[in-house]
Amino acid sequence: MSVRFPWVVFLIGAWLMTACSDVQVDAGANGGANAGSEPAAIERPRYALAIHGGSGVIERGSLDPETEAAYLRTLEEALAAGERVLEQEGTALDAVVAAIVVMEDSDLFNAGRGAVLTHEGTVELDASLMRGEDLDAGAVAGVGRVRNPILAARAVMEHSPHVLLAGTGADTFAAEQGLELEDNTWFRTERRRQQLERAIEQDQVRLDHDDDLGTVGAVALDVHGNLAAGTSTGGMTNKRWGRVGDSPIIGAGTYASNASCAVSATGHGEYFIRRTVAREVCALMEYAGLDVASAARQVVHDQLGPMGGSGGLIAVDHRGNVVLEMNTPGMYRASVRSGEDPIVAIFAR
Amino acid sequence: MSVRFPWVVFLIGAWLMTACSDVQVDAGANGGANAGSEPAAIERPRYALAIHGGSGVIERGSLDPETEAAYLRTLEEALAAGERVLEQEGTALDAVVAAIVVMEDSDLFNAGRGAVLTHEGTVELDASLMRGEDLDAGAVAGVGRVRNPILAARAVMEHSPHVLLAGTGADTFAAEQGLELEDNTWFRTERRRQQLERAIEQDQVRLDHDDDLGTVGAVALDVHGNLAAGTSTGGMTNKRWGRVGDSPIIGAGTYASNASCAVSATGHGEYFIRRTVAREVCALMEYAGLDVASAARQVVHDQLGPMGGSGGLIAVDHRGNVVLEMNTPGMYRASVRSGEDPIVAIFAR
Repeated sequence: MSVRFPWVVFLIGAWLMTACSDVQVDAGANGGANAGSEPAAIERPRYALAIHGGSGVIERGSLDPETEAAYLRTLEEALAAGERVLEQEGTALDAVVAAIVVMEDSDLFNAGRGAVLTHEGTVELDASLMRGEDLDAGAVAGVGRVRNPILAARAVMEHSPHVLLAGTGADTFAAEQGLELEDNTWFRTERRRQQLERAIEQDQVRLDHDDDLGTVGAVALDVHGNLAAGTSTGGMTNKRWGRVGDSPIIGAGTYASNASCAVSATGHGEYFIRRTVAREVCALMEYAGLDVASAARQVVHDQLGPMGGSGGLIAVDHRGNVVLEMNTPGMYRASVRSGEDPIVAIFAR
Repeated sequence: MSVRFPWVVFLIGAWLMTACSDVQVDAGANGGANAGSEPAAIERPRYALAIHGGSGVIERGSLDPETEAAYLRTLEEALAAGERVLEQEGTALDAVVAAIVVMEDSDLFNAGRGAVLTHEGTVELDASLMRGEDLDAGAVAGVGRVRNPILAARAVMEHSPHVLLAGTGADTFAAEQGLELEDNTWFRTERRRQQLERAIEQDQVRLDHDDDLGTVGAVALDVHGNLAAGTSTGGMTNKRWGRVGDSPIIGAGTYASNASCAVSATGHGEYFIRRTVAREVCALMEYAGLDVASAARQVVHDQLGPMGGSGGLIAVDHRGNVVLEMNTPGMYRASVRSGEDPIVAIFAR
């Protein structure tokens, strides 16, 4: 046993950390650095959209068939809501918001109603949104009343001089903007109450278990050539002390620049903040000449992996190349590009 | 008048936006990209330290001599507190904290006691801290009781699994860590009460006036070759809705990586978040091969300037090159390197 056990652990670990990425690229795409001289650039899709519903230890067989079907159906609905906007020549920003609202409204995901509970049994929600053409952005952290945090993030961007509002002040702002409010109890579900009880029993405040799965996000390229990204979450089960993760942090959970790409991340947020993950993918494209798939792989596997930062991200670049990258066994995800069939997936392999 | 006025505005604007930087570099330094092959690298100072006390419209003659002397004296004290740590072969992290505590404790700066007031007349403080050797980081946003927010940021880094704590939860954590607490009224000074009254009369929540000056920060390289950065602020006078600026955001107000440099920023925080300013200086060094002075200039003048993002930053790289860069008429600042005389300055020119 003493000889075999480490090998078993090593093999499981190696399998868990194995690269997985879904990539949809132009036939001629071979790197952002050469974009200017590439004939393939004219073949870019009219629009592209990718969404995620969280990454983590989702293994084949761990979901019962009904639950798996419900996740796939909701991902399809969210993707369709975003694609409708893009088909009708709407903006990437509108598409991202439309897709995220569907996932916030579903109690399957850790965002909006059905989000995880804090140590005190309440819901504290974070969201952010960014537009690639002018780098405008908005975010809220620790809100507990606004029904759709992504709409609050949008209101901060469009109707305040600020980027980030936190706590009850952010809820007050949302109320002044006429956004729909709910009592905090409205967000709490029985499933999350049971998860909190287990977490308190085990004294856990970790993301490396099943419970916190379900941060949601979306990235889009619209027919006008503009990019946008957004992310929404309830954070960690049993979180305390007003803990804020990467989701409401522009540069960590969300970034969009027409100069490179739009990114939404999901995972163990503390590592994603320390690595400014979303901006890092863009910076690797802008300054190191990497294509979006290589940049995403470098950040997820070479930067986050060795630190122990589990998670994934989705990205779309200014030419419609899409990447969905993770170092976990699964990520709820879906993507579509104009003229192509949608992809909906859960497991890494 | 209709002909001459735009010229006057243009000339004043051009003067205001003129590049100003204090740079202390190795004699042979000519770019991080070539660092590996440079003999000058062995001439690096044993340690280096830079601090700032905020940037903005500080013009020669606008400060009475006593106030100017008080600022210079406090900057000298803060610099000396940090340098003592570095001389005694302490860590860059300890030096950064020591320098910031002096400025938080002074009521001259917009950090700790004497910070600006929110719309409600309270004090809400933000701070962050990062260590270059392992990218570990801690931050607090919207705290109102912990006497030294930079110590709370350090406690988050060292004694919690998190990076960012916000609001009353962060104060609770600080209390559990045994940090010194004060009633919120302790932080409020008569000068800030008067500034708030003026701001409310004018319905202002802007950083482009004198009142919000005084975010503080420090960056250091220690004799062990490690970098660290920290930032602390009270944000904007008359701020509402739990507004959070760039200071507590790792990547925006603060970043440190031994692979490149340590950065602390000060200015109109919303722009600094959207440009992930602190991380951007590091990314330009790591991926575009710029030296620290060129990277700082590009971010402050080419990226922030055209957006209207006024402010500045201080940085020190892994070889002890120091840069203090601003696009405003002034920045309270000081720096020192082993074996060299300290520099203490306020005005850009």
